[in-house]
Amino acid sequence: MYIGVDQNPNKGPLSGITVLDFSRVLAGPYCTMVLADLGARVIKIEKFGTGDDTRAFGPFVEDESAYFICFNRGKESIVLDIKSPRDREILEQLLDKADVLVENFRPGVMDRLGYGADRLAKTHPHIVYASISGFGHTGPFSDLPGYDMVVQAMGGVMSLTGWPDGPPARVGTSFGDLGAALFATIGIVSALYKRSQNAQGTRVDIGMLDCQAALMETALARYDVEGTVPGRTGDSHPSLAPFESFAAKDGRFVIAAGNDTLFMLMADALEAPQLALDPLFTSNNLRCRNRSDLIKAIEAITSIEPIQHWIDRLNAAGVPCSPINTIDKLFENPQLIARSMIIHVKGNGSRAIRTAGNPIRLGGYPQNDPVTPVVAPGLNEHREQILSELMASLGSYISRGDDQGDVLT
Amino acid sequence: MYIGVDQNPNKGPLSGITVLDFSRVLAGPYCTMVLADLGARVIKIEKFGTGDDTRAFGPFVEDESAYFICFNRGKESIVLDIKSPRDREILEQLLDKADVLVENFRPGVMDRLGYGADRLAKTHPHIVYASISGFGHTGPFSDLPGYDMVVQAMGGVMSLTGWPDGPPARVGTSFGDLGAALFATIGIVSALYKRSQNAQGTRVDIGMLDCQAALMETALARYDVEGTVPGRTGDSHPSLAPFESFAAKDGRFVIAAGNDTLFMLMADALEAPQLALDPLFTSNNLRCRNRSDLIKAIEAITSIEPIQHWIDRLNAAGVPCSPINTIDKLFENPQLIARSMIIHVKGNGSRAIRTAGNPIRLGGYPQNDPVTPVVAPGLNEHREQILSELMASLGSYISRGDDQGDVLT
Repeated sequence: MYIGVDQNPNKGPLSGITVLDFSRVLAGPYCTMVLADLGARVIKIEKFGTGDDTRAFGPFVEDESAYFICFNRGKESIVLDIKSPRDREILEQLLDKADVLVENFRPGVMDRLGYGADRLAKTHPHIVYASISGFGHTGPFSDLPGYDMVVQAMGGVMSLTGWPDGPPARVGTSFGDLGAALFATIGIVSALYKRSQNAQGTRVDIGMLDCQAALMETALARYDVEGTVPGRTGDSHPSLAPFESFAAKDGRFVIAAGNDTLFMLMADALEAPQLALDPLFTSNNLRCRNRSDLIKAIEAITSIEPIQHWIDRLNAAGVPCSPINTIDKLFENPQLIARSMIIHVKGNGSRAIRTAGNPIRLGGYPQNDPVTPVVAPGLNEHREQILSELMASLGSYISRGDDQGDVLT
Repeated sequence: MYIGVDQNPNKGPLSGITVLDFSRVLAGPYCTMVLADLGARVIKIEKFGTGDDTRAFGPFVEDESAYFICFNRGKESIVLDIKSPRDREILEQLLDKADVLVENFRPGVMDRLGYGADRLAKTHPHIVYASISGFGHTGPFSDLPGYDMVVQAMGGVMSLTGWPDGPPARVGTSFGDLGAALFATIGIVSALYKRSQNAQGTRVDIGMLDCQAALMETALARYDVEGTVPGRTGDSHPSLAPFESFAAKDGRFVIAAGNDTLFMLMADALEAPQLALDPLFTSNNLRCRNRSDLIKAIEAITSIEPIQHWIDRLNAAGVPCSPINTIDKLFENPQLIARSMIIHVKGNGSRAIRTAGNPIRLGGYPQNDPVTPVVAPGLNEHREQILSELMASLGSYISRGDDQGDVLT
């Protein structure tokens, strides 16, 4: 449903969908950012005074938070004071128009505000109602606060990340929040698909811890089958070799030659065909078992020339490899540039910031625009526009009385 | 569309959808596993002889790969020899019935087989055609092999993961594959939603590197605004403190108290209210600047008692915290158990393996069944069943001639 006129009906597959976004910080806003990237209209309901907590998170550009701008690009903002009867009336009207509601409060908060899933299932059964929380809305931990750091620790990924002889490391990006955001998005869009058939909304209940468990790959099964607790493997794959970083003259780079054919191609590309004939290295199992000898043998060769020399040779031979890029290198990566993955975002100030765009490429829809900045809203920026759209929408099917006018203006 | 009779129409929001799955190893199979978890029928097209490469990946249970079983649970398998005219005819009939096609070959492979996106857009415009590859189907790196290890290195996450004074670490799970799988799933389901309106399929082109860039959170923006290259921060959050692990008597655990209120609650829970009054620690900015003093002050207290003592106290006070769980601990985690997140999967043998289930909880659909194993298919196990369904389906609208019978039996 759309309140006003859909300005850009071909923006993406979700154009025409309106999302009421009660979420704050990262997991919820990242989810609704993906929905906006796919064409949905996202109306951010912000709290009176300060709005989304991340408006106060650095770094700042012309007094606006770059953190906020990154994840709230392309959304609209309206401040609603849930204690004010007038604002509650506005919210009811927005709910009548909305397709999706997203929130990431702790379980119980939306119920206390009067907008819980149970109530909306009765009054607005067409709404897809999505909650993202640390532990989900059921179970004994449901009321505990679940931050990214907490679920990375509890869900096992920290125990697998870092070096075997060192302490567990955090994944260098908020894997707990982002994993949950992506599963939530899948749940929401699946529910929209189903709604296109049966006209019914669905409750989506995402727990960050559940998502962490689902992203542990085969670690659970390996423990269940082998009885040994999977540990940290530094920069290598636990069951493939060579599949790790190696020293070149000017730094480290990775080679991922996890099968015999690639290993032979690698040996040739390094001008060391004897490696592939060495009885220590003739199968992946042997290479894993003799990993330290293998690393020594490869580095005896790679350490003589710089990274780019080996990357060029290995690429020419079709062997998977890469420099270990720092973040600054992404801006000049020819592939990311060719795929328009570096976009500009901005707030109400003049300065645009570069960040990564939407990685979901869909035929028939416009790709990321690498030039024109996508704008994140100022606090309450779209209030007047949204109210006038609601008014026009009301006017189209009821005659407007003074009372209604008073509530809306 | 469904070839035969949908056995379980309320399995999930995607029931009724048929996915032809040409994918192998991890990114593609994880994507189609999520689609199957949501109710889609997934028919895995496997190569003659060996099938999916991961059928040969350990660990093994009764000679079947636990790796394969984990990600191919709930799917069907048919071996098709693309060089055989008979099998090509079967494939054409399957395409007539399919809603979604998923493949993760290198760009060009499906075209050479005769089932590329351009051809199917002409002959089967209703199909949602999804490709997952290392770098996507456009751009200068398009033909390069892109493994998880390669995109973790190239996309920046390794540069952010590990300890500041140590080498970059790999994320301990296949973040490159899994991130791409989730974005691909979002693209596919969005395209199915759109198709419910306009009856047209969409091309979905996912590059693992693009997805890595999109998952770097604010790292790109931070570099763009501040000009310093984001680095590794070990187990702490770069801009929140305390938000890291601390030593207890019997190991390490995390506390995530990233705002002033939580910090005061933490100080009280540790029976050290003076911490919250220390002028070094009165704001998050100060706590970040004086992080090493902060850690020393906290560990002077936490190191006296075991982890569980502090977890109980901090939980009671509402302060986010967690033990750093190893994988074996997930099986006994009360929250994962209560949410039915630990499921059983099996192959054709008798022994079931425990792994994590679907984390997308949707109201009105059955939750994960923690008891009955979900079965992964043997190679070509469903050939006869699929052929007889195709035959029945053909028979329902054309009279069956001998030629057709010859092709199908």
